[in-house]
Amino acid sequence: MQVPKTHPRYESLMKREKIIEALDKGILAKAGLIAHGRGEMFDYLIGERTIPPALKAIEAAAATLILSKNPVISVNGNTVALAIEDTVELAKELNGKIEVNLFYRTKERELAIKNVFEEKFGNDIKEGKITILGIDDATEQIPNLDSLRGKVSKEGIFSADVVLVPLEDGDRAEALVNMGKKVIAIDLNPLSRTSKKSTITIVDELTRALPLLIKYVREFKRKNREDLLKIVEDFNNKKNLKETVEYIAERLKKLEFE
Amino acid sequence: MQVPKTHPRYESLMKREKIIEALDKGILAKAGLIAHGRGEMFDYLIGERTIPPALKAIEAAAATLILSKNPVISVNGNTVALAIEDTVELAKELNGKIEVNLFYRTKERELAIKNVFEEKFGNDIKEGKITILGIDDATEQIPNLDSLRGKVSKEGIFSADVVLVPLEDGDRAEALVNMGKKVIAIDLNPLSRTSKKSTITIVDELTRALPLLIKYVREFKRKNREDLLKIVEDFNNKKNLKETVEYIAERLKKLEFE
Repeated sequence: MQVPKTHPRYESLMKREKIIEALDKGILAKAGLIAHGRGEMFDYLIGERTIPPALKAIEAAAATLILSKNPVISVNGNTVALAIEDTVELAKELNGKIEVNLFYRTKERELAIKNVFEEKFGNDIKEGKITILGIDDATEQIPNLDSLRGKVSKEGIFSADVVLVPLEDGDRAEALVNMGKKVIAIDLNPLSRTSKKSTITIVDELTRALPLLIKYVREFKRKNREDLLKIVEDFNNKKNLKETVEYIAERLKKLEFE
Repeated sequence: MQVPKTHPRYESLMKREKIIEALDKGILAKAGLIAHGRGEMFDYLIGERTIPPALKAIEAAAATLILSKNPVISVNGNTVALAIEDTVELAKELNGKIEVNLFYRTKERELAIKNVFEEKFGNDIKEGKITILGIDDATEQIPNLDSLRGKVSKEGIFSADVVLVPLEDGDRAEALVNMGKKVIAIDLNPLSRTSKKSTITIVDELTRALPLLIKYVREFKRKNREDLLKIVEDFNNKKNLKETVEYIAERLKKLEFE
């Protein structure tokens, strides 16, 4: 489909194309397309921009990531389809750990995703700048999750203190929190169980949120530990989600139908 | 996927399965899965039930359909996937005309949809209770739409006075209104261009709205013309959409995050 760059919904339509391509390449499950549609709608409701509560969450997330001892970025098909470059860039600012963790785990999709990383970032992998976990080494199990969805890598999510989970499912977010981990979610739905259960929820579109998160991680590396701790302590996820929902409600009320 | 009937999201998950099946059968385009996700999210926002403004729109739609001389029900892949039975039942209460009208029109999808109608409702077609238009007879063109999307049947949408368009796209709804037709849309997004441009917009989930529409069509057949005209005249689409959006905004504000 040819969409002119001047089209008011250009960005959104391009993301849709990427998602459909990812399905064709075997990176994405069909349910991933439906999930993308749900996200599109919430992005539309927040006005397709990073709203103030999201920026607050991004700052708290950046501070949490810098303070963490063993952070891991969990990726699924949608994340790879939309934001593989930013994911790798963020991982490089941290310890390089990226773990593939699929809701509908099949060997084919695992390999398709592994291939994308190797094709695009083969050098970074060789040089040890990033490590792709969760494919051949998903031998541990998250308690209270069904076996396939709960499979994780020992040096990845299983032992992580902080897990960044873009586009996660609610059960898994909750199970990770129950393991004592801090979970940072990027989820456009402020009402989802992922959003409610996570330690920090960034209600923003992935390809807008990740570059901002990278920017703040870089900036905050210059801050001292006390300042970072204060940013984390000042953040209240429930309050922030409430502000997000109020923002959407106010925005809806102001829309005109004439 | 096995989902127990007691699952709180059983209905929604079953619809998702139907949509994925339809993709596998070639009835649905991939973008139809994303569109379904957008709908899911708005359904979630209205509380997955028929809200008062939707009921008002359904009554106005029923009256309009009974008063019409040549109504046509336009169907796409999503409608066929989710609600083929109700579509046929409604058509039988009217003049039986159903027209296949696809956003991404391909011969394969046309035939896949034709086959579903023939397999499930072959007798009704033979007996003339319903007519499936828009496949071999889409020889006319809706003005100001690109050629594939604008192809319509002469005895169907082209000459219809009222077109019921479940899950429509905005351009086409507008083009049909510009042709002087009354357009009744069933669209979960009250902010969409389809919703704003249509004569009557039912903001409700298709499989909840259609049975109600059938019920009111049956009931209203007993009403006299004046009463029906009054129901139509009393309906104001912009006001009704505004009420819908306010309903969502109020509902969002009342949600608890504790």
